[in-house]
Amino acid sequence: MDHAVVMAGGSGTRFWPESRVRRSKQFLNLTGKGPMIGETLARIFPVVPPERVWIVAGRKDAPHLSPRALGIPRGNILLEPEGRNTAPAIAFAVAAVAGKDADAVILATPADHAIADVPGFRAVIRKGFRLARETGRFVTLGVPPTHPATGYGYIERGKPFPGKVKGAFHVARFAEKPDLAAAKRFLRSGRFDWNSGLFLFRADTFAARLQEFLPEVGREIRKAFEGDRRGFPKRLAKAYRRMPSISIDYGILEKERGILMLPAEVGWSDLGTWRSLHEFLGGSGKNITFGDVLLADCSNALVRTDGGVVAVLGMDDVVVVRHEDAVLVCPRSRSEEVKGMAEEIRRRYPLLA
Amino acid sequence: MDHAVVMAGGSGTRFWPESRVRRSKQFLNLTGKGPMIGETLARIFPVVPPERVWIVAGRKDAPHLSPRALGIPRGNILLEPEGRNTAPAIAFAVAAVAGKDADAVILATPADHAIADVPGFRAVIRKGFRLARETGRFVTLGVPPTHPATGYGYIERGKPFPGKVKGAFHVARFAEKPDLAAAKRFLRSGRFDWNSGLFLFRADTFAARLQEFLPEVGREIRKAFEGDRRGFPKRLAKAYRRMPSISIDYGILEKERGILMLPAEVGWSDLGTWRSLHEFLGGSGKNITFGDVLLADCSNALVRTDGGVVAVLGMDDVVVVRHEDAVLVCPRSRSEEVKGMAEEIRRRYPLLA
Repeated sequence: MDHAVVMAGGSGTRFWPESRVRRSKQFLNLTGKGPMIGETLARIFPVVPPERVWIVAGRKDAPHLSPRALGIPRGNILLEPEGRNTAPAIAFAVAAVAGKDADAVILATPADHAIADVPGFRAVIRKGFRLARETGRFVTLGVPPTHPATGYGYIERGKPFPGKVKGAFHVARFAEKPDLAAAKRFLRSGRFDWNSGLFLFRADTFAARLQEFLPEVGREIRKAFEGDRRGFPKRLAKAYRRMPSISIDYGILEKERGILMLPAEVGWSDLGTWRSLHEFLGGSGKNITFGDVLLADCSNALVRTDGGVVAVLGMDDVVVVRHEDAVLVCPRSRSEEVKGMAEEIRRRYPLLA
Repeated sequence: MDHAVVMAGGSGTRFWPESRVRRSKQFLNLTGKGPMIGETLARIFPVVPPERVWIVAGRKDAPHLSPRALGIPRGNILLEPEGRNTAPAIAFAVAAVAGKDADAVILATPADHAIADVPGFRAVIRKGFRLARETGRFVTLGVPPTHPATGYGYIERGKPFPGKVKGAFHVARFAEKPDLAAAKRFLRSGRFDWNSGLFLFRADTFAARLQEFLPEVGREIRKAFEGDRRGFPKRLAKAYRRMPSISIDYGILEKERGILMLPAEVGWSDLGTWRSLHEFLGGSGKNITFGDVLLADCSNALVRTDGGVVAVLGMDDVVVVRHEDAVLVCPRSRSEEVKGMAEEIRRRYPLLA
């Protein structure tokens, strides 16, 4: 059966002051439609019913993960005792899913990405499930680029992949985040797509590749799942203490041969910065506001407040965010630097972190 | 005897969000040394003792005018029933002062200006008291300009005024706020000083000129002061309803012949805008902050918060003010437009005004 694993392990600094140590990006209402994680689930439910949707998240976020609010069974919420990047997180989730359904085909998706074209997205993942099931291969979703982004990794397309599911390609290679010149070359070539971080695979394929490329992760997870139910949390904690911190991209995908890519022209954004939120909301050249905001003679502004008025006069290309006890002001074009500033604030004002 | 009348009748919009309908500029702690009105009184007390310092203010500000906190007798706080600009305010105050001291010489000063060189200022007003007493003339303080300001009125110097008090000049004329070209001409000529709005005069001189130039104001004030003490507020309210709204400059000073000017090179600023506050605090080219502010790669910034952190990244020439329930962001160079924006906010968000 088809399953989805929503990876909600991130901790947020790039959306400070809305994201804090105790409120990661996936729980922010960035687009005005509710928490990112809720949007992610709502996108998936019509394709994968709630009883086969799983969330893997950090234990620190447990208070935010009400099964009732999320609409999935309590047992589908998998809490990691500590963060070990995405490879152990997915290995943990795949083991849990396979324990219930040995024939599972799994969509792994970040909890905090945005998709403008939701029906289009559903059509693509339906194709992805069929492709992964029929081929036994990893299937990544590649997003045709709209501009020479330097904040994303890229996937180079190989030859079209023949078969019943149309439109797939072999992956020639994964490329790290490029500099601007390389990003422009990628765009011109027409052979590169953004790496969305969403991919699909059969549970048995994953288990085999885990054994091959990250055997120590496979072994620790297996040991955690062997034994009585009561002792599971303790065994899992032990496994996490022993596993390396490694991403699924670096640990498995970049080593695997025969990966396929399905183009997903669905208005995807990883919402990595305030600027990319502004762009995702169609704000380029326009003002986007949330809350009681008064603008006079502004352009290209993103202004948000959760209470109290924010008045901005005569500013171009600016981000202003008032949230609880903090205010951020920066040029939209420099919103990548917010992360570093948030870390500085974390050091200087621990209560504000 | 020497007296001082502090004019505290203004209502603030230019320092929104710190100034509000119910908190005028003179009650703001703009420089970090306490409310403007307190700074104004502290500057004067060593020259004019508290029992001869008077405040004329709007009735709406009465809650802020604690005699104990201000350090002057309750009877020296003169409350106007409504605002009628400076000529009626000063006429009211002069009548009150003259009722106690017919030989009074009076310094009239706004409550909300800033002076960097306080000892220098005291020396100038001591001279001003002597000059006004000995000559019976109005004595204005002119500030040698440091740049071609367009936000101030100017005073053109005439010939030096001979006499025991050295350094005074005849006033050739008062010039309205100039445009930039005219301000530059004024500066080059060396004959123009900024009109500080501070001036000195004998009570008898004032009474005579009031009778001559604004007889209706003189008559109404006189009638308010005639009669029993209990009926005074009612008579004053009647007088204010009948008096025209007119400034002392337009109503008397610009019509009077023989006014003298004393140069006051004392680091004066009327603190008219956030920008002029920034300049007064020595901020040109520098960052000036109040409260929990974190700046990264900013220049020429004025950032203030009364609670909660404000983080500003990569901004030049910017004003950011967080105060209670509101935040303002604007370019420093456009802080003159804050007034208009505050008025707009007053219409749209009456509770924030």
